[in-house]
Amino acid sequence: MKAQIITIGDEILIGQILNTNAAWIGEQLTAIQIDVAKESVVHDQEKAIINEFEEAFNKYDIVIVTGGLGPTHDDVTRKCITRFFNSELVLNEAVLDDIKSMFKKRGRELTKLNEDQAYIPKIAEAIRNSRGTAPGLWIEKENKVFVAMPGVPFEMKEMVNSFVLPQFKDKFADSNKAVIVENFLTTGIPESSLYEKLGNLKLILGDSKMAFLPNQFGVRMRITIEAENYNQAKNKLSEIEQQIRAKVGRFIYGKNNDTLEGTVAKLLVDRGLSLATAESCTGGLISHRLTNISGSSNYFERGIVSYSNGAKVELLNVDEDIIQKYGAVSLEVCRQMAAGVRAVSSTDIGLSVTGIMGPTGASENKPVGLVYIGICDENVCSAKKFVFGDDRLLNKEKTSQAALDLLRRHILGILYEE
Amino acid sequence: MKAQIITIGDEILIGQILNTNAAWIGEQLTAIQIDVAKESVVHDQEKAIINEFEEAFNKYDIVIVTGGLGPTHDDVTRKCITRFFNSELVLNEAVLDDIKSMFKKRGRELTKLNEDQAYIPKIAEAIRNSRGTAPGLWIEKENKVFVAMPGVPFEMKEMVNSFVLPQFKDKFADSNKAVIVENFLTTGIPESSLYEKLGNLKLILGDSKMAFLPNQFGVRMRITIEAENYNQAKNKLSEIEQQIRAKVGRFIYGKNNDTLEGTVAKLLVDRGLSLATAESCTGGLISHRLTNISGSSNYFERGIVSYSNGAKVELLNVDEDIIQKYGAVSLEVCRQMAAGVRAVSSTDIGLSVTGIMGPTGASENKPVGLVYIGICDENVCSAKKFVFGDDRLLNKEKTSQAALDLLRRHILGILYEE
Repeated sequence: MKAQIITIGDEILIGQILNTNAAWIGEQLTAIQIDVAKESVVHDQEKAIINEFEEAFNKYDIVIVTGGLGPTHDDVTRKCITRFFNSELVLNEAVLDDIKSMFKKRGRELTKLNEDQAYIPKIAEAIRNSRGTAPGLWIEKENKVFVAMPGVPFEMKEMVNSFVLPQFKDKFADSNKAVIVENFLTTGIPESSLYEKLGNLKLILGDSKMAFLPNQFGVRMRITIEAENYNQAKNKLSEIEQQIRAKVGRFIYGKNNDTLEGTVAKLLVDRGLSLATAESCTGGLISHRLTNISGSSNYFERGIVSYSNGAKVELLNVDEDIIQKYGAVSLEVCRQMAAGVRAVSSTDIGLSVTGIMGPTGASENKPVGLVYIGICDENVCSAKKFVFGDDRLLNKEKTSQAALDLLRRHILGILYEE
Repeated sequence: MKAQIITIGDEILIGQILNTNAAWIGEQLTAIQIDVAKESVVHDQEKAIINEFEEAFNKYDIVIVTGGLGPTHDDVTRKCITRFFNSELVLNEAVLDDIKSMFKKRGRELTKLNEDQAYIPKIAEAIRNSRGTAPGLWIEKENKVFVAMPGVPFEMKEMVNSFVLPQFKDKFADSNKAVIVENFLTTGIPESSLYEKLGNLKLILGDSKMAFLPNQFGVRMRITIEAENYNQAKNKLSEIEQQIRAKVGRFIYGKNNDTLEGTVAKLLVDRGLSLATAESCTGGLISHRLTNISGSSNYFERGIVSYSNGAKVELLNVDEDIIQKYGAVSLEVCRQMAAGVRAVSSTDIGLSVTGIMGPTGASENKPVGLVYIGICDENVCSAKKFVFGDDRLLNKEKTSQAALDLLRRHILGILYEE
């Protein structure tokens, strides 16, 4: 099965935004063995769009289009699809109900423009949009599939996950072959060290494949396993997983779509532990991530973003003399922050960070990227030094990841190693 | 002048990396008035590549190719170009010297594979590579230009800046035309309402163009203006901007790459105002965004993530009876949180949020998505109700955006309207 992904929108052609939609869709299709043979981007102009539809639908089994489905004059995709398939626009009552109830819930008045979005080409099935007003379109013709979705990423992704991928799996799955793709998520170890610790990959993998995919949060190991049937593939995977975990298991915090905050949340809930955070340089990013998990009030009691020295002294009982002597970015202050937030909030664990995110704030002995992360419970109270890079936002992200991982290791009793 | 950018490489099609090369080239070409009419990505397979060359070189004046020029077996671009132009590979002595001296400088031994890179199609002029071994190729035929460059971004960018752009400016510069692209960033108003408030777009825009680009943080209005020269385009823009601002100016928080947190930071610094935040449902996202701006310690004093009721009472002096009577998610508690955080931190402004982000936590009268945002200074202390959607993470993002916008409006004295 070969697919082309078409993205409609001037803002990509002029380099104003990156084509993250095509990349994300490409990843999803690849995971279910659909070959993404081509991607293209065209202007939001009728002629260019219809031209591209023709070329793509002639050559490939699947065409996926994003963008240009909004309510305003520059959203021409629906019109182009109607014309390309020689169809006509008809009112879809279910979609109209969706739009009406969305406006009602938000307490806003329905406009004519939004009502018009309930008209879709007769040839198409509507893909309901639970996150916005523009429906997606699903068209089957001559054993081929044509899909159009809005360009807004969170609307498009929900449609792909809840409708498009299940449909594709139903239609195109090769019953003579089973393929499993599994991702192991690591953090706190660079790609090259991970590679070295794993040793001879051929011995671990056999005829399966592995890719190392690094980003600022860690390295993802993607394993692709083919076998004659699903059970055989599952057995292969379980053998491979066992060997990987024996070698680098302590760096693995999850699989596939897991998040580190999700893993930490589960550990806290399972063990009935409560947590409070004291953040300086990350400015609330750690508590933000911890509270992204539904049910976070079961373990997260409070967070203090003690940005000023005054806040550290007043809210966390950090010793003013210690700040004077060692500086706000120091092992000593970090430890006091963790102990302080734990004490004032009466939680089982206190977690703290203090550091220099840049570009300003460095001194002779304290470079941009210097971070201390502290953790205290009823038995131990310690802090650890890290040095990240030059980029402020990346430093915040890396610091939050290292802090959550320190928490994970602390709960699991995994020692930190160099 | 119309151009197509072709990117060669499986890793983009499978979503492993984003197509940053095409975006960057698109931006450079747009800046010198070359219309990037299409971008495409194809597998590194001969047939697919030559096919794409044909379609592109037939239709457009300029074709720019990146990727597949390296020394290994999967780099087939040079071979495809040679075949497509019916040319033959010949040794280019200057390129060979470049490669030799690069290897000498790096203290590595020259391999046969790298020496082979000095062979280029007879029809092509070599674009010297000062940062790597693969030369770029510049081909002119039938008044069209075909350019191929390596996919390594810093090699490609150097070639574009030092060779390709100067050549294009020489050959194609239309001294009779200037183009300006400007973006106005709005929040707190849906796309359809913005469209309606603007009224007759034709009257505002004349022959200029406008696109509406929504996401969870607001709607971006992108204006494209063409004129006979730069000054004329600037004048047109300033007239359009005036009319847009007269109608929807209060929703505009910035232009182009501005962020709302950056705008708010600038307002706080300009007016010498200090700020403290009290967050419940956003869990620290607001303070995280405020501290993404370098120099945030000049205005941000502290943030309290008062997740539990106890934290609200202890840290913000919220009245326990009021929580009992109205619930933690209420106008009354929200106002007390803003007043409380302002008082304990002695800042000019206190900003607070409390809400139900979902999927759990709703009650009969309080749906998922219900949020109160409060703001207090020495004169006023008020809170406002919002209702967002069902998605927890989107709700957090939308709430943080609405809170920062309320702060912007408060400082600027812009009243909130429905």
